[in-house]
Amino acid sequence: MRIRRKPGVREKLLEQTQYIVDPGRLQQNWSDFFNNDHPIHAELGTGRGTFITTLAKRYPENNYVGIERVPEVLWQSVQKAIKLKLDNIAFLWMNVQDLPALINYGRWERIYLNFSDPWPKRRHTKRRLTHPNFLNMYEQILVSGGEIFLKTDNAGFFEYSLNQMADKDYRLSAITLNLHESEWQEDNIMTEYEAKFSKKGHPIYRLEARLRT
Amino acid sequence: MRIRRKPGVREKLLEQTQYIVDPGRLQQNWSDFFNNDHPIHAELGTGRGTFITTLAKRYPENNYVGIERVPEVLWQSVQKAIKLKLDNIAFLWMNVQDLPALINYGRWERIYLNFSDPWPKRRHTKRRLTHPNFLNMYEQILVSGGEIFLKTDNAGFFEYSLNQMADKDYRLSAITLNLHESEWQEDNIMTEYEAKFSKKGHPIYRLEARLRT
Repeated sequence: MRIRRKPGVREKLLEQTQYIVDPGRLQQNWSDFFNNDHPIHAELGTGRGTFITTLAKRYPENNYVGIERVPEVLWQSVQKAIKLKLDNIAFLWMNVQDLPALINYGRWERIYLNFSDPWPKRRHTKRRLTHPNFLNMYEQILVSGGEIFLKTDNAGFFEYSLNQMADKDYRLSAITLNLHESEWQEDNIMTEYEAKFSKKGHPIYRLEARLRT
Repeated sequence: MRIRRKPGVREKLLEQTQYIVDPGRLQQNWSDFFNNDHPIHAELGTGRGTFITTLAKRYPENNYVGIERVPEVLWQSVQKAIKLKLDNIAFLWMNVQDLPALINYGRWERIYLNFSDPWPKRRHTKRRLTHPNFLNMYEQILVSGGEIFLKTDNAGFFEYSLNQMADKDYRLSAITLNLHESEWQEDNIMTEYEAKFSKKGHPIYRLEARLRT
């Protein structure tokens, strides 16, 4: 697993062992780590963590795993978890492409993809987090019937993701081209990026995709 | 079947028996009418007929059925067919809600829904041509594995249609939020409405949905 070495932040992060942080340290099942069998919901790319820590606070009946490769922003997520005294959240400082290494530690029920980098250039297609290579990884780590909740402000990335997920024959639902004006707005938790972006009046796209059982 | 009585146009339409026009006159299977077993592709709401007559000219290996309830615009479609000397097209002057009356005359392989009235008000939901009541009708008249090709400029209608079709577990593909900038542009035949509307720079939404076999 590639971990960016930035001494100051890295050291602070590695001290937060109650939240794991270094995926190399994960040597037990999630159920052992959390001391329960609650469903695992993961966010790939937590940013500054408003979304996943708000979820963890609101839904103590789930466990949350936040994955983020940039230590500076991950550190802000961890600080939010400390402040909220959350005991149902873990953070992994890693690249999403290294997900297969996590399969042995327990399956997930849901993956959140929030405002993932759209990689608009065709030559970067393989980097999009809804490229079939990534979807195949998610299928490995999700339970049967597991789900992917995606939101983005990027129409091209949304279109690409919809088509890839439809090609995979996932069950699609709760699709909206304007989340903040839709019936799905009520339960929505805004990410930092979303709050900033939606102020400009641009629409947010969202969908849910479920693996078939 | 409800047919609007507008003497002048109605009489001219009813003279065009080589194109049927009055669905009450349809007393044989499509294969007998067309003298072949080519696949039937239908457009629900032909408008002035540029789309379906262009298709019929381009693809002589298919038969086309255009359905339209407004005689003035249907008359323009029929005139186009006459001018192009098409022998693989028929027109039915009727409401889409009367589709079940057509089931005995042969199944269709494809339905086109082009720029259908979006009926944006919630109380008019049942009038949308992708309401489950209509989708159920289409399932009756389509062959197993039959398909629905939809395009619209209305984001709300597109969102509604996507969700209804996903709920029905149709196989979705070729979804685009901006048809004229997409890979599906190449084969696109613009409707009159589409040509006018897209000049203003608004995006056209499109999808394909297939019934499961």
